[in-house]
Amino acid sequence: MKLKIKKEILLTNLNNVSKALSNKNLIPALNGIKFELNENGLYLLASDDDIIIQSFINQKDIKNIDNYGSIVVPGKYILEIIRKLPTEEILIETDGSKILITTETGEYNLNGIGSNEYPNYNLQLSKNPIILSTNILKTAINQTAFAISNQEARPLLTGINFKIENNNLEIVATDSYRLAKKIITLKKQQKNKIDITIPGKNLIELIKILEENDDNIEIHVFSTSVLFKFNNILLQSRILNGSYPNVNNLISEKYDTKIIVDNQLLFDTIDRVSLIMEKEKNIIQLQGENKDIIITASSLEIGKVEEKINLISDISKKIKITFNSKFMLESLRSLESKEVEIQFNGDMKPIIIKDPNNDNLIQLILPIKTY
Amino acid sequence: MKLKIKKEILLTNLNNVSKALSNKNLIPALNGIKFELNENGLYLLASDDDIIIQSFINQKDIKNIDNYGSIVVPGKYILEIIRKLPTEEILIETDGSKILITTETGEYNLNGIGSNEYPNYNLQLSKNPIILSTNILKTAINQTAFAISNQEARPLLTGINFKIENNNLEIVATDSYRLAKKIITLKKQQKNKIDITIPGKNLIELIKILEENDDNIEIHVFSTSVLFKFNNILLQSRILNGSYPNVNNLISEKYDTKIIVDNQLLFDTIDRVSLIMEKEKNIIQLQGENKDIIITASSLEIGKVEEKINLISDISKKIKITFNSKFMLESLRSLESKEVEIQFNGDMKPIIIKDPNNDNLIQLILPIKTY
Repeated sequence: MKLKIKKEILLTNLNNVSKALSNKNLIPALNGIKFELNENGLYLLASDDDIIIQSFINQKDIKNIDNYGSIVVPGKYILEIIRKLPTEEILIETDGSKILITTETGEYNLNGIGSNEYPNYNLQLSKNPIILSTNILKTAINQTAFAISNQEARPLLTGINFKIENNNLEIVATDSYRLAKKIITLKKQQKNKIDITIPGKNLIELIKILEENDDNIEIHVFSTSVLFKFNNILLQSRILNGSYPNVNNLISEKYDTKIIVDNQLLFDTIDRVSLIMEKEKNIIQLQGENKDIIITASSLEIGKVEEKINLISDISKKIKITFNSKFMLESLRSLESKEVEIQFNGDMKPIIIKDPNNDNLIQLILPIKTY
Repeated sequence: MKLKIKKEILLTNLNNVSKALSNKNLIPALNGIKFELNENGLYLLASDDDIIIQSFINQKDIKNIDNYGSIVVPGKYILEIIRKLPTEEILIETDGSKILITTETGEYNLNGIGSNEYPNYNLQLSKNPIILSTNILKTAINQTAFAISNQEARPLLTGINFKIENNNLEIVATDSYRLAKKIITLKKQQKNKIDITIPGKNLIELIKILEENDDNIEIHVFSTSVLFKFNNILLQSRILNGSYPNVNNLISEKYDTKIIVDNQLLFDTIDRVSLIMEKEKNIIQLQGENKDIIITASSLEIGKVEEKINLISDISKKIKITFNSKFMLESLRSLESKEVEIQFNGDMKPIIIKDPNNDNLIQLILPIKTY
């Protein structure tokens, strides 16, 4: 393998695949990035055996190609070296399992691994991918991923569920104490029903490499894996086993009373009040009557606090409810609206948080029993 | 105690004293900030029993003073609360050991500690302080503090030594493998010789609260402590016991050969080459002949690297020397000059790094024996 390439092009693509590297892999080759140069161009691939990312550089974006070939390059070193090189162009050559990187002033000899030692991942495309805009998917994952569970005891809840029927895509995450649900209308009708749960951490890596744009992303669904394709990048993740709980019965259409309040004002107030809480319990209380709500918190050690917020519309019925302040802050942050509507069904039933003018994103929090 | 004060004024002064707080203090009162309000104004004080910082707010900068008094307020909470308050003005009242902070929309009740439980620190000024510009002291500490030892086995070397004779101030730090020495000419002749060693970590806290300006700072020296006074702030540190080693015999006036090279170019090259080193050894090699130097490093695991740099003036004599790359990077970063002069006395004697046009700052590194 021998090629000359612009530093910036190589660096961008190395950055993409590096999101799949883990440092503690038992298979030595998986600590590296596989370079494969053929007549199409240069394929870079990295994996931690759970997520696989491939980034492709077309031959027309490569200055010179002298020899085809493939090799596995130590991942954490190659990225840092390329990032710190001062020159515009880089010459990369391999000799057996050695990699030689040459610039105008320096020579870097790295020990690589033969590509025959790298697992053979077969990244395939399906015939009928789901297609949606990159920005829409990125936003939806940002609005739901914080609600997944980090308890490995219930593996399914560490994932985000994608359900498709006709042109309706429903994205749900829950840790069983709170829930986030986003609905997206697809432009193209989908023939088959889809119901898959994708590990949340893999989707978080996915959105790190998605650029901010309206280009389409394709989602190719298989029985045990899912593959995302956008521009020159493929990202494959496994699918979690099991059937995701039906959460729609938790979300009541009716409510007892609701408040409408400025989102940023409520967020900042809860953020401040949360300074005075018993550590790790995150309990705050909200009381509402007429034109105001009062948020309170207390801690035996630190003291107590009370803050008042004016509502945008009067409240129809008194409320007094206790909940997790961190969950509420994350829900509020996920909403893009200036105002926020919070629906209550008594002090024991789920709290619904949403944009007053839009039902596409629903955040739900269970209250905390205090007696 | 009862006062009304602008948020920004209180916050700035709380920030200053908070640098002295430690979280793990055995004396509960030391986890707090002492507020003391009298006819002069509000004194804020914090200490970890090693460093003491007092920040003073003049009564003319306080909106209203209703009652004098003092109390100890929990340090980490008060700072966060004041920072996050949205209002311009804050009302602070105390009732026994309780603190009540009131804004337009909220009330914060904090549990305090009676100020009688706070250690009685007596911050005194001497008659003949050393006076120098804040910026000059700040720069000098930045240029030397990285060279102190972090080994508690030789406590004196964890400090920075200040020696004054006549109008000459010499500031030295060394961990016995490298050394930084800065010379400052004082405007005012000093009557008594001074030779004190101040804990490096306390000086690092000092420069965090020194603003970027040419205001004077006063250094008041006592037998067991030193007090820095600038604007409305007093910072007192203990002095380390023992006599600091004489380092001047290490710094040879003569040298065998020298190179002059672009500072940033050398820094970036060594930074890059350092990616390919045995972990925690930090060994790189420099070879010079005629117009160039070659920097090399290698690691059995990762590989090897070689970079070439053009010198600004030819080298008079071949050199080949091995040293710690981290030490060299820190030395180069401390120099403010575009070009850097490096003096050699064979491969076993100290390397001197300095501005070619200025002897006020000397950086010294011992080579590493490789045989």
